[in-house]
Parts: sequence; structure tokens; C-alpha cells
Amino acid sequence: MLGVCYYPEHWPQDMWQQDAIEMRALGLTYVRLAEFSWSKLEPQEGTYNFDWLDKAIAVLAEQDLKIILCTPTATPPKWLIDKFPDILPVDINTGTTRGFGSRRHYDFSSENYFRESMRISEVMAKRYASHPAVVGWQTDNEIACHDTTHSGSDNAKHAFQAWLEKRYGTIESLNEAWGTIFWSMEYQDFSQIELPILAVTETHPSHQLAYRRFSSEQVVRYHDAMIAVLKKHCPEHFVTHNFIPMTDTQADNFALAEKLNFACYDNYPLGRTDLFFADRDTDTFKRYMRTGHPDFASCSFDHVRGISKDNFWIMEQQPGPVNWAHHNPRPLPGMVRLWSWEAVAHGAETICYFRWRQAAFAQEQMHAGIKRVDNSKSVAWQEIEQFRDELAETEFDLTASVNSSVAMIMSTSNQWVTEIERQGDSFDHQLVEFEYYSALRQLGIDVDFVSPNADLSSYKLVVVPCMPIVDKVLISALEASPAHIVFGPRSGAKTEELTLAPELGPGNIQRLIPIKVESTETLRADCTMPILYKGASYSAGRWNEELAIGEGVKTIARFSNQQAAVVQNDKITYLATLSDVEFLRVLLNDLAVACGVKTYLLPEDIRLSQRGQFGLLFNYSAQAKRVDLGASEQLEFVLGSEEVAPYSLSIYKRV
Amino acid sequence: MLGVCYYPEHWPQDMWQQDAIEMRALGLTYVRLAEFSWSKLEPQEGTYNFDWLDKAIAVLAEQDLKIILCTPTATPPKWLIDKFPDILPVDINTGTTRGFGSRRHYDFSSENYFRESMRISEVMAKRYASHPAVVGWQTDNEIACHDTTHSGSDNAKHAFQAWLEKRYGTIESLNEAWGTIFWSMEYQDFSQIELPILAVTETHPSHQLAYRRFSSEQVVRYHDAMIAVLKKHCPEHFVTHNFIPMTDTQADNFALAEKLNFACYDNYPLGRTDLFFADRDTDTFKRYMRTGHPDFASCSFDHVRGISKDNFWIMEQQPGPVNWAHHNPRPLPGMVRLWSWEAVAHGAETICYFRWRQAAFAQEQMHAGIKRVDNSKSVAWQEIEQFRDELAETEFDLTASVNSSVAMIMSTSNQWVTEIERQGDSFDHQLVEFEYYSALRQLGIDVDFVSPNADLSSYKLVVVPCMPIVDKVLISALEASPAHIVFGPRSGAKTEELTLAPELGPGNIQRLIPIKVESTETLRADCTMPILYKGASYSAGRWNEELAIGEGVKTIARFSNQQAAVVQNDKITYLATLSDVEFLRVLLNDLAVACGVKTYLLPEDIRLSQRGQFGLLFNYSAQAKRVDLGASEQLEFVLGSEEVAPYSLSIYKRV
Amino acid sequence: MLGVCYYPEHWPQDMWQQDAIEMRALGLTYVRLAEFSWSKLEPQEGTYNFDWLDKAIAVLAEQDLKIILCTPTATPPKWLIDKFPDILPVDINTGTTRGFGSRRHYDFSSENYFRESMRISEVMAKRYASHPAVVGWQTDNEIACHDTTHSGSDNAKHAFQAWLEKRYGTIESLNEAWGTIFWSMEYQDFSQIELPILAVTETHPSHQLAYRRFSSEQVVRYHDAMIAVLKKHCPEHFVTHNFIPMTDTQADNFALAEKLNFACYDNYPLGRTDLFFADRDTDTFKRYMRTGHPDFASCSFDHVRGISKDNFWIMEQQPGPVNWAHHNPRPLPGMVRLWSWEAVAHGAETICYFRWRQAAFAQEQMHAGIKRVDNSKSVAWQEIEQFRDELAETEFDLTASVNSSVAMIMSTSNQWVTEIERQGDSFDHQLVEFEYYSALRQLGIDVDFVSPNADLSSYKLVVVPCMPIVDKVLISALEASPAHIVFGPRSGAKTEELTLAPELGPGNIQRLIPIKVESTETLRADCTMPILYKGASYSAGRWNEELAIGEGVKTIARFSNQQAAVVQNDKITYLATLSDVEFLRVLLNDLAVACGVKTYLLPEDIRLSQRGQFGLLFNYSAQAKRVDLGASEQLEFVLGSEEVAPYSLSIYKRV
Repeated sequence: MLGVCYYPEHWPQDMWQQDAIEMRALGLTYVRLAEFSWSKLEPQEGTYNFDWLDKAIAVLAEQDLKIILCTPTATPPKWLIDKFPDILPVDINTGTTRGFGSRRHYDFSSENYFRESMRISEVMAKRYASHPAVVGWQTDNEIACHDTTHSGSDNAKHAFQAWLEKRYGTIESLNEAWGTIFWSMEYQDFSQIELPILAVTETHPSHQLAYRRFSSEQVVRYHDAMIAVLKKHCPEHFVTHNFIPMTDTQADNFALAEKLNFACYDNYPLGRTDLFFADRDTDTFKRYMRTGHPDFASCSFDHVRGISKDNFWIMEQQPGPVNWAHHNPRPLPGMVRLWSWEAVAHGAETICYFRWRQAAFAQEQMHAGIKRVDNSKSVAWQEIEQFRDELAETEFDLTASVNSSVAMIMSTSNQWVTEIERQGDSFDHQLVEFEYYSALRQLGIDVDFVSPNADLSSYKLVVVPCMPIVDKVLISALEASPAHIVFGPRSGAKTEELTLAPELGPGNIQRLIPIKVESTETLRADCTMPILYKGASYSAGRWNEELAIGEGVKTIARFSNQQAAVVQNDKITYLATLSDVEFLRVLLNDLAVACGVKTYLLPEDIRLSQRGQFGLLFNYSAQAKRVDLGASEQLEFVLGSEEVAPYSLSIYKRV
Repeated sequence: MLGVCYYPEHWPQDMWQQDAIEMRALGLTYVRLAEFSWSKLEPQEGTYNFDWLDKAIAVLAEQDLKIILCTPTATPPKWLIDKFPDILPVDINTGTTRGFGSRRHYDFSSENYFRESMRISEVMAKRYASHPAVVGWQTDNEIACHDTTHSGSDNAKHAFQAWLEKRYGTIESLNEAWGTIFWSMEYQDFSQIELPILAVTETHPSHQLAYRRFSSEQVVRYHDAMIAVLKKHCPEHFVTHNFIPMTDTQADNFALAEKLNFACYDNYPLGRTDLFFADRDTDTFKRYMRTGHPDFASCSFDHVRGISKDNFWIMEQQPGPVNWAHHNPRPLPGMVRLWSWEAVAHGAETICYFRWRQAAFAQEQMHAGIKRVDNSKSVAWQEIEQFRDELAETEFDLTASVNSSVAMIMSTSNQWVTEIERQGDSFDHQLVEFEYYSALRQLGIDVDFVSPNADLSSYKLVVVPCMPIVDKVLISALEASPAHIVFGPRSGAKTEELTLAPELGPGNIQRLIPIKVESTETLRADCTMPILYKGASYSAGRWNEELAIGEGVKTIARFSNQQAAVVQNDKITYLATLSDVEFLRVLLNDLAVACGVKTYLLPEDIRLSQRGQFGLLFNYSAQAKRVDLGASEQLEFVLGSEEVAPYSLSIYKRV
Repeated sequence: MLGVCYYPEHWPQDMWQQDAIEMRALGLTYVRLAEFSWSKLEPQEGTYNFDWLDKAIAVLAEQDLKIILCTPTATPPKWLIDKFPDILPVDINTGTTRGFGSRRHYDFSSENYFRESMRISEVMAKRYASHPAVVGWQTDNEIACHDTTHSGSDNAKHAFQAWLEKRYGTIESLNEAWGTIFWSMEYQDFSQIELPILAVTETHPSHQLAYRRFSSEQVVRYHDAMIAVLKKHCPEHFVTHNFIPMTDTQADNFALAEKLNFACYDNYPLGRTDLFFADRDTDTFKRYMRTGHPDFASCSFDHVRGISKDNFWIMEQQPGPVNWAHHNPRPLPGMVRLWSWEAVAHGAETICYFRWRQAAFAQEQMHAGIKRVDNSKSVAWQEIEQFRDELAETEFDLTASVNSSVAMIMSTSNQWVTEIERQGDSFDHQLVEFEYYSALRQLGIDVDFVSPNADLSSYKLVVVPCMPIVDKVLISALEASPAHIVFGPRSGAKTEELTLAPELGPGNIQRLIPIKVESTETLRADCTMPILYKGASYSAGRWNEELAIGEGVKTIARFSNQQAAVVQNDKITYLATLSDVEFLRVLLNDLAVACGVKTYLLPEDIRLSQRGQFGLLFNYSAQAKRVDLGASEQLEFVLGSEEVAPYSLSIYKRV
């Protein structure tokens, strides 16, 4: 289904009705309202003004539109900040207070803000609990955006100390767990422990990891309390949240999403690609600047599907150029439609576009909408119509699930480990995971992202690009799973407290494959070296491990000095290096085939996804491309054909 | 005429007389004194010491030298800072106080400093009002240098709040004008409004623009008060100021210069080129590192002539290597003479060299002077003599005006708009303006920089490289002008308050040409695309607009996707993209010719300027170059010939 | 001899005895203990716990290992910081306090910390003064590391004011010496003087130099007091310190080492090369990333020998990958042995490896040890055994001196001058010195680094790459020395107070060669120009001086514009430019030969050092290389041959 983000408060009331009529004409079902509207809803402390919102809902409901309301907590108004200045967070890199004047100016450790947030949420929830047009809620907005998970405030420090006491019980136990004997960091009391910021040089990694865990839990605590308020008063409504990319929340995304009915993603393929590819050469950058990389938005779709209950929503879909990346290109014609279908292919049930009409003022005035500021229709309009019609014509089942036999394990705490202990500047957790994901996607493989304590019994292949902390519970789950497991380097190297695995890396994984990491090195990205696999040479080496190999372990790829680069037994394939995507594609193809996972020989820039009965072929290139899907199944094309048009897609149905 | 900046207080008194004799021998008329000398003039609060200055003036006057005095306010002494610590400004990027120990350590919003500045100015003005050798005053020094226009102090905040109240009257009117409904930024009272700094993420653009306007007005308020003090007590003296490049003041330069008798420029071609070209490749950088770019100093000359009453002065002319750029090359032999003539060609009446003798100590000890620290003559000496003699031999009329039929509109507030709302990292307002200017200069066209409310009736061609805010008064002036108008992209896209033009870009310009900007994109500078004009292809695309075109509008250049890149009607040419300089040169040549503006086919690195009866040809290259000026006029060479020598110039007279 | 750094407190007591037995088996003599152990030795104020240390010493002594103890002052414990918060230093770039949580969190100007440091040092010294196994002390650890020489605290400010008063006597004398008349910086009282930090723009260079001198003296004051405590109570023990690279201490290294028995160096060739070569291109960087540059560690060895009494120690030798550089490669096989021998070749008497066993926790858990965290032996183990055996087999005399006839003058205060007054971004004092050093080393010349007031009577060639401040005492020493002197550009250009030499550069050096520097320029590193020497062209030009040349001075190399690039008389060769290393190699070869210093034609990546009777040839390349040592001496190879194996060495003895 389709929806839109709408800010009636930005426009004269006399435009609302026509807006609602046009929304319906476009085939929209949902309208998201009230995000960021606290100062409008409560212009002074305790003085509420819901008239405008009641009116807006009424006008929209008249056109049978369903309303999703937002708690307006991402933007506390100035009067509230002036009353409780401790709401403002403190920058952990400078120690200065992050002031009012934009958004997300709140500290998750401010009890004043916690209380006030629940108050306004409750007021709204009570008011709209039984409104017939209101169907659900979005909590806050893009929680943790703008690096707001961490605060260096005194509030945060005291909450952290209490959190530590709860986690470790005694100070001796903390000293022991972290190894504070190093550099005389032993504590006598929890009240001595500072936040691990603004020190002379790098702080203790265990201290840092604890602070990240604490900060994440503060976010979850806040978010869960808000969900509880909404569910208490509005038991019939769904509660969701619009996530930014998983790697940016600095929070445990599985925990954040756990109490939601489902999760949403805010999808900005061009802005995100611009940031992620900022250091790429001209050719690579230019190639995808108006389309987004074929796997980048998809990776986020699969992430969000992973933390959602089954499928997910797009709460904000980029409809044109945005305003916030280094450069903000126009999508190529057809891309808004293609992105919408790509989200559907990965499990989206509803696509809401951001925003109805481009704002005439403020920070996002250069962010395109479906309608322009002069109320004309932007180019996205026609593409949304086309998408709407194609959904109907293909009879696409938006409730169907994506069924994958390949899983990747995703774990924010493991991302933190690599951020805290970089060890080499060319190690980037997001990039490492993306490269494995992209290799799988180039083979036409659908991927489930699962949590470290997921049920793995249904997978044939489990891929773990980088997971330094692998606990024994996961080892047991992996042992029990029928899947073959692929581990990237660093896996299992650390304990839960970010100390070294006492038996050397890969730590607990040694129970599955008898190897030991005897030394580790990192190299500059441009100073790497080849590995040899089945007679061909591939680039590798940003991170290299020297392995000692036990019984029953085969070396299947070697460094140029003959040391083992990739080793294997029946259960496990372990990569002792970071390689290029090409090697990953070749290796994962061999492994997938061996596990009985079907792979495809897809032309460059072609991607294949399967959902329910449908298969979707996407072409991110300027040339029409013919795809050979093999003769194994009976297929019927319901959109396009095996010759996929440029910047377009084809859809087939298994019959 | 010639002059020099002199700091007698840096040298033993017994050197002064010989200095004065040598100044006269060099043919100097003016000597600037007392800049930065507050601690010498008032060593303790209220205890004045003018003896040394009286003596220095006397010694110089004896040689018939005329004195320009400076208010010493760019460097408040330590005792004053200790008495009024609120004089120190606050860094807007960090919130920390910018301390004593260099210069310009004052806050334009400190009322204590305002009062003290006027006091010392008045003391000096009264003392020297009737001194026969004193002819004029320089206010302060390089106002706004070192990013001092903006301060993050409480003084600034309170003054800003008062300024806002004055501008907007009611808080409702401010909320409405800015659109503070966005992100719940609505205010209930002016006292709630912070400076738009140190927030979680980017602050409201209208808020930022207001802060820039306020800060600029604070500078003008301070400067105007100082001018008033000087004019009150010294009605016979001129009052001027030595400007840094217009783009660096962060103030309305027209307003700053309005009450001055004329404006001065401090001309450092190598230092400025080093900074401006810092990211250029080896060949481009090396080519001009010892000459300066042919158009870079000139552009500043024309800027300053634009804000001056008619002609202008060079108050500080670089005589050799400086100390403050990333790299500080030696000028090539002949360049000090060439730069002096180039300034004259663009309207300079007087050139003062900085400084008489290189300082032996402190921050600028590596900054060359006319004389070296051992009192020997630096290489500049002979070049100044040559320039002096050539001025006499050519009988150059230094009072003549530059008469141009081509104007460019210059507006600091429009520069601010593009700095506040970058939208693409490769958009640089200074560069955009420079590229248009350079294209015109390569055609031998003299350019007037004019303010947005200038009289445009005398121009044949008006060029507006980037002016997002175009108000209706300017539209009327353009309509009334006989000139053809060239607009670059972004023009007219915004309202006065930095919101979007409700009718879409180019906003009010639509009254002159029926086009609408339907979407805007920015691209990375290395990822652009060609445009086609008259069968040739040119590079373009850092900023691109998608145009809808009304009746009577021709498309004269197209993007490779066939969309309109440059459109035109009789009155207006509108560029929907940022192109390379080569395209601008070709297009502007065609437009100039059509408007009856004479253009020239100049060899590379040759520039032509005309002033009064004189034409001046400059050669910035290592090769002699022959220039074909066409047969239209009777010309007589008074210096050199049509074959312009390397790093030299030729001058002809129209007969 | 061999030793190791050991942290028994990081491991269960039941491992200690086996550790000690293995240390002895490896042939170790020394064990360094108690570094960073304050919180373990004094867990609460005044409550000491020496049991563990007594026990550890006893266990080690049982194996005849000798103990070096450390004062634990690099890591004050949290209870001490909480009692005296003024111990924490203040960041001079931001003004924020540098907090607890890592190491070196102390301010050399905190009197509280001074007193507490001497207290804990005295307690330890008294306790172990007569312990038979304890032989010496290491003060603190890597003093000044992490930019801790400078603090922006009030303590530092007040101590600085007192220091200034002592140095200058009267405020008038300071004003005069610095030239504070510039920019109205005149002071009336010492109490007005701020630290030269956090100002609006660059602060006064003389002010900055004074602050650097003061800060250096604060470090020396602290360090000397600690040495005095140790020497008072432990007159039989040696006292040493483990230095970081000389360029990083920001202190007068000669002064710091003066009261020590000898100096130590902490040798991390790969980490240091990674940082020093961070901006190099792929080929240059990759070539040495696993070996270190052949001259980089050596240069530090010679530095430390220079500040030591005669020979020196390596207190910490890298045994494998480290954790703290941008990238942390694995040493190539053989490099730990090669580095150990390279240190010996340059005068090391003892090599201690860091650390015995890789730490399982905290900041350095990725830093390799001789043993791995699982107690297995890392690859370094076997290389240390080989080195131990070769030392014995070759009967190498570790007490012999390095005897060189070529000296380079090293002066931290001159490094400061170039850091304070950069003048060109491509001037890097460390790089300039390194290039001269590397050129000499490529010629097989051993180099002594000496202080500016060293006895120079035994040298044939003295090289001064960059020494802006050359006082008359040094001039007299140079005059008296039989050596030919080579000066690089900038030499002699400044007075003691960082003002310009009144007679122009090279200032006092003009007494030795009649030349004057008439102007100076700096160029971007990629925009330089050739010089011509003996018909060949070399790259030069990052720093260029224009020379006026007096009688008896020959120009031996010229710029392309024919100006003098290198000039010479019998006593002095003066380079007026920074050239490439190749030119320095050719020029210094000619000069060395003329002075009777033997040079060698060494293949690329081969280095030669001579110590006592021994000559050592090192091969940093992957190819075996034959070295022709000439027929002048009777040589006998005691290790390897004239064909030096890849990544290996040969040793010969003069017979």
C-alpha cells in the first residue's frame, strides 16, 4: 500500500481538503501526521492546542485516508528547554552542550526529558485512542540520528555509574572483567568512573564498550517506555518507528524494534550512497550517483526486515533530490518507481513517500516532495501512479514473506568492537558487511539478517562477515543448525568484555574448526597483496591473520607467501583476510552451490529478488540486459520480460 | 600617487630622518602611521603618550610627506582587556573565548569596546585635526579579518535579540517570516532566541541569515560611529578603510564603505592566489604561484572600485614574499611593477606599499618590505622607481574613471545564502562569481561591480552569476535598464527571508522571462556532464536546474539529455547550470557582441583594461605576445607595443 | 645483553615461576617491572601494597634475572586525581581539561602532582635501595608522549609568568626582547601575560618560543627531581629513561638525559614508519611497511646515542605488529633479529623486548609480545634466540663505541622555531633532518648527533640541516673545529629570541662565510624547480633563498634562473634550498671525500655501520645484494658474507 508524510501545519487550512482529495486520487492509504509538532500542540507549558490536528485528521478521514500519528519528541520546544536545561545533550568529542535550534536536542539520560516525553505521548495517545481514522503511531523520529545516542552529560555519567553497578555488582568484579590493572585504572568505587571521553589518549576498550552498551540501553529504555504509553492507551493501534540505517543508530536495533508491531525504514538511496561512496573515484561514484548502488538500499531493507516482525514498511521514500548529502543529484527517470519496487521485493508492505509537498521554509526547503512548493506535481507523481498501477496489475501479494535459505548475522555490539578497536584505518565494519552482502546479491541470493540469538535451523548457509564476540550460545546454535557457516576475519577473537579470547582467535569458534590466529596485521588499503583461489588471483589484505591449522582443516586459498588465507572443514569456512568483492562472489557461489542454495549468473548491475511467488529482476544500468534464469522452473512474466529494460524491472511468477 | 605604510615606533628614532629622506627620494606622497599603536599611545588607562607620534609626523612632514593616521582599534592593549574582559569575542564554532595575544581580539557587540574605541578615536582626532601634515584617516585595520564579524558571546546574543525585535516587531511575525513551525522551533518571546550556533545539527537558515545580517550591521554600526567621530573633529580630512577581499568580510561591503570618502584595498596577489588555488593541481597552481592569477587581484580591484565613490586606493601593496599563506613564493621579477599598473588600470589613484621596512620581530617578520631589516633596498625598490617614472612618462591620468558598459551585481547577503544553504559541496559562491568575471576579462571587457540597488541605466550588459534573493525593486530596475541581463543558476530562487520563492525559481525573475525551475540537483565536481552550444560541447553540471519553459523563450544550449541548459528571450539569458569558464567566455562573447559591447580576441594570459584615454595590456606569461586590437580606433603606444613583453605591460592612448 | 618488559600483575601468580624459567632459557639478563603500577602499589592513599612486587622480584631473582624498576608516575590513580583535580592537564588547542581514563593525565606544572610523584618515587626507592636483584630504575615512561609537554592550565600560566620574570628580570626587558610593540602587545606587568594559546589568530613567535622553553624546563625540572630522589636513596643503581623519538618530546632532550646514567629508546620501526610515511604514495609506503625505512629507526638510535653518555639501550623493542599506528603490519620474517642487530650496530648495549606476553585486556591487547596470550611463543621468540646466539658466536663487543668523524647538530629549540614559524606548509623539520641523515647513511657514513655546545674538535665534517638560531659560542666552536661545515637553509636566520638576524641570514654564520640572504620563499612540494650541480639536474625548491655573495665564495650549484643554490668557501658549504635526497647524497659524498671521510657505493636498501672492530651490512630488500667494500682494509666476515642475504645482515671484523 501507499502512503505519504504530511505536515498540514505548514500550509494554510484552505489547502487541506484539496490535498486530501489528491492523495486519494493518487491511491494513497496512509498519511503520517504530527511529527515534530510539539510547539504547535503545546505552545506553552500545559496549554494544548489540538484543534488544527483534529481538523486535519477530519479532512483526511473524509477521503478515507488512514492516519498514523507521531509522538513529537524529536523536537522539544524552546520553552521546555528553558525550563529544563538539562534536556540538552553534551558533545562527547568536545564536552560542549549541544544547543537548541535544530532537532534531536535531547539527552536520553535526562530524567526531566524522559518524564516530559511520556507526558506528551500520553496526552496524544489518550486523545486519539478511539479516533476511527487513526490506525497507528510512529514513535519520535529517526531515533539516534545526528549522533545523539551518546551524551557526555553529568546525567549520563551518573546513570552510567548506576548501570555499571547493576551490571557488575562489585567494583572488584568490574576491575577484573575489564582489566583495569592496566595503566593503573583500578577503581575503588563506581562513583569514580568517568565517561570514557575527553581523556589524554584512547580510553580503555572495555570501558568504551560498556558505555556503548549503556547508551544503547538508555535509548531502548526511553523508546520502550514510549511504546508502553502508546500501547496502554491505544491497544488497537499499531506502533512503529522509522529507522535510519542500522549502522548509524549506535544502538541495539533488535532491542529497539522488539516491542514494535513492525519496523519502518526511511529510504534515501541517493543521499546515503553519496555519503557512503564519498571517497570513491570518479567512475565508481558517477556510475551510481543518480541511481544509488544496487545493493545499498537493499541492504538496509534486509536489515530492517531482520529487526521487524516479518515484513516492514518504508515510512519515508525519497521522491527526488534531497538536501543533506555532500551532493544531491536528481534520481534518473524511473528510479522512484524502481526503488519502490525494490523495497517491495525485499519485504515492504507499504511505501510512504516523504513528503507530500516540498516545504517552503526551514532546513529542508531543498528536499523534494511529491508536489512542488507551487503545488504542481513533481516527476515522482507519475512514477508513483505507475507503481500503484503495476502493483494492481501484477496482483502482487504484499503480505507474502521473503523466504531465504541464507542468513547473515548482524550485531551492533560487534560493530562497536571494531569501532572502538580499529587496529587498521582501512577496516570499516559497514563496508566489510556490505561487501559480503553485495557478493551474495550478485549471485541472486536473498539474504536474511538475523540476530546472534536467532533460530538458525532453517538456513543452508550462514555468513558472519565480522563478529569478534561469539558466545557459546551462538556456537551451540551454529552447531545445531544444518547450515554451513562462513566466518570473516576477527570473528571470535574477543570475549564479551572486549578482552582477547584466551585461547586466541577465533575463540569459541575453535569448537567448530580447529584453527588458531597466531598473529594479525592490518595494511593500508592501497598496499595489499593477492590471494590465490583455484588458480586465480584476487586482491586482499586490509586485514590478515596468520593461522595455525589443526586436523581436518583444508586450506582452500593462500596468500602469495603460501600461508593459508581461507580454510575450511565440513561445517565452517573461515576467511583469514579481507578480500575484494569479486573473490567473495566466487567463493560464496561455490559454497552456496555446495549447500544446495541456488545461484544465478546475473549480468552486471542486474539484481534478482524473490518474494512469495514472485521474482523481480532489477536493472540499474543504462542498457537493456537479458537474464538467463535457468530452465529449472516454469516462469511467467507479469511485468516486462527476461530482457530487463534500463533503469527498470521485470517481474515473473512461478507457476 | 605613491605611498607607504610606516611603523616608526618599531625603529630607533635616529633612523627616522633618513627614512623620510629616502621616502621622498622614492617619490612617495603618503605615509600611513599609527596602525596598531594603541599600547604605545596609551600605555596605561588614561595616560597618553603622543610624543613619539608627533615627532615622527614632524620628521616626515619636513620632507613634504603627507600623513594618513589610523585609529589603533584593531589591537586593544592588554590592560584594556583585563579591565573589560567582555571585549574578547567568542568562537562560534567552539563556544570558547578568543583570547588576547594576536590582533582583532574584540567583539563588535561589546558596548565597553564600542565606547573605548570611540574614545581613543576621538582623542586622536582632536589632537591631529588641524595638523597641517595630516590629510586623512584609516579606520581600524582590515575590519572583519580572521573571521571576527561573528561572535558567539552573550553580548552578541542580547544585541541579536534586540535587533530581531526591531526587525520583526512581534514574535509572531518572526515565526511567520522564518517558518519556525518546522521542527517545533516556534518562539514565544525574543528572549528565547539563541544564536544559531553549536546546535545538534544545522540550524534554521532564516535564523542564520538574520544572524549574518545582524552581525554585518553590528560591524557597520561600529565603523560608522568611528567615521562620525573622525569627520566631526577632522572635517577637512578624508576617511577611508583598507578592505580585505569582499568575500571575506562577511559584512555588507557597500554599507561599510558608504560613509567613507573612498575605499582602499590591501593587495596581496600571491598570498590570496595560494589560498584560493589551494586545491588546484600542480600545473594550474604552479603556473600562477609567482604572478597571481591574472583575474584574481583584478576582481578585488573592481569590487573595491564598486564600493568606493569612484576610484579607489591600494593601501597595502605586496612588495615581495609574505608570511601568511600556505606557501609564500617570491614574485617574479617585474610583478610588483605589473601589479601596481594593474591596480591603476582598474581605477587606483594611489598605491601605498606595505611596509617601508620589514619588521625584525613578531608575527610578520617574514613579510617582505621595500627595505630589508638591515636597511638595504629589496628588489621591489627598483620596480617602484620604474612604476613611478612610467606614471610620469606616460602622463597617466590617475583621476580618470573606468567606464564600463558591463556590470556584475555583487551582494554579500546572497553570498550568505549560498554559504548557509550549500546544497552541494562543489558550489562555491566566490568561485562562481570569479568564473563569470574571468570569462568577461578574457574578452577584454571592463567590469563594474554594482550593488543590487544601483542605477543600471548606463549598462548594455548586466551579469548576475548567483543571486538567490532578487527583490521586486531590482526587477523594476532591470526592466527599466536597456541592458541584456544574464542570470546564473539559483538566481531568484529565494525570498528575502531565505524561504523558497512561492512561484518556484527564478522567483521574481519570472516577470522578465517565463521559466520555472522544476527541480535542482548538485553533482560532485568530477562527476559532471557536457552541455551543447552551437555544436560544441562544454563541461558543466556542478549545479543543474530542470526548467519548464514558457512562451517566447528559446533554448540556446542543452544538456546531453536534451533538457534546456541555457534559455533566452530578448531581455534575459538564464543559465540553468554551472559550466566551465570556456563556455562562459564563448556565451558572453556572443551576448556582448549582440549588445554592442566590444570584445577582443586576447592571447592566453593577456588582459586588457581601459581607463580614461588609456588602454593597458598585461602579459602574465613567460612569452612575449602580440595582441591584435582591431582597426577600429587610432591607437598610440606610450609604453611598449602591441607585442607585450613577458611579465610586463604595454600602454596605448586613444587619439 | 637482552631483557624484557614484564607485567606480572597482569597474570596469575602461579604463572610467574615458569615465566622466569623461560626468560632465563631465552638468555635474558634484565627484567623491567612496575611500570604503570601505582594503583596496585598504593590502592588507597597511603596504603601501600608491595607484596606482589616483592614476590615477583623474588621469583625472577631466583633465576638470576636482574631487575629494573619503574617509577609508576605515568599513570596516577583515580583516587589521586579525585583528591587533586589540578593534576589533570589542559588541552592547549581547545582549553578543555584532559581527563582520566588513559595515561599521562598529569600537568608538569601541578605542584600537587610534583610532590606526589616524588613521594611515591621515594617510597619505592627506599624500599628497593638495597635489594640485591634490583640494579636500576626507569623514570616514569615515555615522558611527553601524547603531547603532554604543554598544558594550558592556570598552574602552567602562573608558573610561566614566574619563569618569564626570572628570565627577563623586568617587563621592559621582555617587551624589548620580544618586540611586543608589534600589534600593541606591550605588557606592564608579568601577571598580564597569558599562555600563547587560543588567541584570535597566530600569537607572537617570541612568546611561543618562550612558552616552549618554559614547558621544556618544567619537564626537565620534574624529571631531574625524580632522578635526584632515586640517586639519593639508591646510589648503587643506574637511572635511565625510555625515550620516544626526539622530535616528539617537545623538550630539550640533552637536558632531559643529562642526569641519567644512560638513555634508552623505545624502538617501534613499523609503527613509526607508518606515521612518518602516512602521506607517501603506494609504492614508497608499501616498500617499507613491513621492514621500516632503513634509516628511520637508525636515526633515532643515533639521536639517543647522542643524548646518552656513550652507548644506549633499547628499553622496548617491537616484537611483532603493534596496535597504535594507522595500519599495523606484521614484520617480515627476520626483521626482529635485523632490528636488534641494527640497534647494536648504532651503539645499543642491551635490547629489551616489549613485552613478555601480549596483554589479554585493555588498550594494548592487539600489541604483540614475545609470547602470545595463550602462552605460546610468537615468531619473535626464535629470532631473539638467533640474535642471542649470533651475539655470542660473533663475540660482538657490546661495550665498544661508535666512532664517527661526521656529526650532525641536533637542537630541539631550533625545531620549535620552524614549528612556530612554518612559513611554508612543505617545511617539516623532522623530514629535513631525516633527508640529510639518510643521504649520509646511504654513503655508509656513521653519524654522531651532537648538541649545539658539543666539542666538535674530533670531526671532519659537521652537518647542520636546519638551525635558525646559531649563537656566537657555536660559531667559535665551529671556527675552532677542523671540520668542514654544511649548513642547510634557514640556518642562522634568527636571534635567540626568534627575531630576525639584524644582519640578515645566515646571521652569525656570516662570520664564517660572507653571504647574505636577501629574500626567502617557500613553494608547494609539487611545484618545485631543478637545480644544476656538475652538469646534472636535481629536484629542489620547497624553501629557497636568494643570496648575495661576498668575496671568496664559490657558487657550486645554481637554480634554473642562474641564482646561487649552493655556495662554498673552504670552511663552509651553504645550501640555499631544500633539495631531494639524491642531490644531498651526491653533494655530501663530494664533501666527505674532500674531508677525508670514507664513503661507500652501497646498493639500494643496503646500509653499513661500524662499531668498534665490527662492520655490519644490513639488507632491507627482498634480493640478496653484493657489497663492494673496497680493498683498503683486511676484513673477515664473522656472519654472512659480502653477499648480504635478503632482510638479513652480514658482519665483518677488521683484522
